[in-house]
Amino acid sequence: MSSVLSPSIQEVFALVLNPLNEVKESLMAIIPPDSEVLAETVQASLTGGGKYLRPVVTLLSGTATGPQDAARKQQTVEVAAVAEMIHVATLLHDDVIDGSELRRGKKTVRAQWGNKVSVLSGDYLLAQASVKLSKLDNTRLVSIFAHVLADLCDGEVEQMHTSFRINTSWDSYYKKTICKTASLFSAGCESAGVINGLPEAQVQALKTYGRNFGIAFQIVDDLLDYTATAEEMGKPVLDDLRNGLLTAPILLALDSKRLNETERQALQTDVESLFTNPAEETIVRIQGLLAQSQAIEETRQLAHRYIAEARQSLDFVADSPEKQALLSLVDYITERRN
Amino acid sequence: MSSVLSPSIQEVFALVLNPLNEVKESLMAIIPPDSEVLAETVQASLTGGGKYLRPVVTLLSGTATGPQDAARKQQTVEVAAVAEMIHVATLLHDDVIDGSELRRGKKTVRAQWGNKVSVLSGDYLLAQASVKLSKLDNTRLVSIFAHVLADLCDGEVEQMHTSFRINTSWDSYYKKTICKTASLFSAGCESAGVINGLPEAQVQALKTYGRNFGIAFQIVDDLLDYTATAEEMGKPVLDDLRNGLLTAPILLALDSKRLNETERQALQTDVESLFTNPAEETIVRIQGLLAQSQAIEETRQLAHRYIAEARQSLDFVADSPEKQALLSLVDYITERRN
Repeated sequence: MSSVLSPSIQEVFALVLNPLNEVKESLMAIIPPDSEVLAETVQASLTGGGKYLRPVVTLLSGTATGPQDAARKQQTVEVAAVAEMIHVATLLHDDVIDGSELRRGKKTVRAQWGNKVSVLSGDYLLAQASVKLSKLDNTRLVSIFAHVLADLCDGEVEQMHTSFRINTSWDSYYKKTICKTASLFSAGCESAGVINGLPEAQVQALKTYGRNFGIAFQIVDDLLDYTATAEEMGKPVLDDLRNGLLTAPILLALDSKRLNETERQALQTDVESLFTNPAEETIVRIQGLLAQSQAIEETRQLAHRYIAEARQSLDFVADSPEKQALLSLVDYITERRN
Repeated sequence: MSSVLSPSIQEVFALVLNPLNEVKESLMAIIPPDSEVLAETVQASLTGGGKYLRPVVTLLSGTATGPQDAARKQQTVEVAAVAEMIHVATLLHDDVIDGSELRRGKKTVRAQWGNKVSVLSGDYLLAQASVKLSKLDNTRLVSIFAHVLADLCDGEVEQMHTSFRINTSWDSYYKKTICKTASLFSAGCESAGVINGLPEAQVQALKTYGRNFGIAFQIVDDLLDYTATAEEMGKPVLDDLRNGLLTAPILLALDSKRLNETERQALQTDVESLFTNPAEETIVRIQGLLAQSQAIEETRQLAHRYIAEARQSLDFVADSPEKQALLSLVDYITERRN
């Protein structure tokens, strides 16, 4: 869907270079001064190789639907920082909840410092996000992010209840995806619209863009767990599945008409055996059945449907480099390799 | 300090019977409908034998400085519920941070369900508290509780850095006490004043009442770790000290002029030995040196100083049963046995 006229990802990031630097400064300003341990974990978590996608999407939503005066620019920077802080806080708590050892190829805070420090670092970021948000003196923005926190928990609860369950439903997968990933993207975009004082229908359109962007992003993320190499991802192949997470590719394979009943049952058995024993031959068999079911290609098509919906939500926005950047970003997420 | 005219604790609770029931209903309404596990942990945590002191102090601050119309009453009930939810959330996270097995004589959520469920239950309560707060549509209240979250983390960090350190300073003990305990009491009282639209000086006086109430409450709590029986507390005697927490009684004993240098060093050695091996003879020796230092009596006097300051902060409030209840509550905390 990208054309020769679409900005490259480098051009997208160049468009938000200045405000993104302000977001990073805002994040560095909250590093706790009184605790060497937390200063290290919070700084490492905020700068640990993340792509700042939530801030970038928030900032572009703001400039694309502007013009923004200095005050609105500043508010959007702060909201973008809040989105990243909440995101990183949930990673720190998720690592405790999931007992994770590696993230982005590095030892997690939990693996290095223990559950205690990981919980506390996450709580610290949530508290500082609340303080930052309260300073904006806008109850609508407070409400948007309060509901994000509730969504994030609901998603985590859904995941807890469906992990290691071969009969995980599509409804459950969507709920988890919307709550755990899409909610924060859509909150950032919605907030940018609120800050710009857009008519409610346009605020909702921005929110829909963020939501579909987030769903597509998560589907591609789930796809990469099956298609990217361990080196690219910084964690083992089929890591989600080994950890009991049934995501789009495996759900589509289990549903696929290209597998007969014997093959479908073989796939179920292999997946359940993987939960307790990730043997190389099991992994190879699962990958073979996935290829046969064409679930990878179908997952990619599914992501493209959400991408198309995300792009459509921006119809109301006048053309500009920032609008083109928002359109390009959704394409970029399908092209990424980690 | 209590007189025959002061209301008993039963009379204090009777004064807030109706709004406290509304607080409890408000708390029960947030029990997650979609998760049996979290429904059980959240309900158990919210009803697990706590005295609802934070809601009670908040409600009384509201009625004592009223009159309150229905809207203000309702807002105060919601803020009181938020204070309790944040309190319970921190207990759930603290249990993970401290690896605690027992609370109020019962197995902790962490001991029964694991770190994962305890972190998630705490996050759920924090998220629902944020949602509840955002619905009040009052940025001052949002700001007050955002700073409470920051204080709670700062207190926990302070505790992490001073645990198992024999040279813990008084400054550090006060900081921890103010951040971890007093902050939430003072936020409840301050919020009641804000809801009632009091002049700023009176809002600050209510906040000071809550702060000193909270400090006295924590000092008495720390005292009970030394004076109450294991049965009364539902956890072993000297439990704080065994877990590396140096609180008022031991800090006063280490500072006491009633111990000579040899005795002071013996006390230090015993405390440090207790950290790794809670032998009965060590506990007996520590208790003997504490008795000799009169640190228990001095700790009680310290609590009384904060109680006097708390009472004084209410000078601006016209006399009423609710004012008398606020005055009696501070006396009550020194008389409690668990």
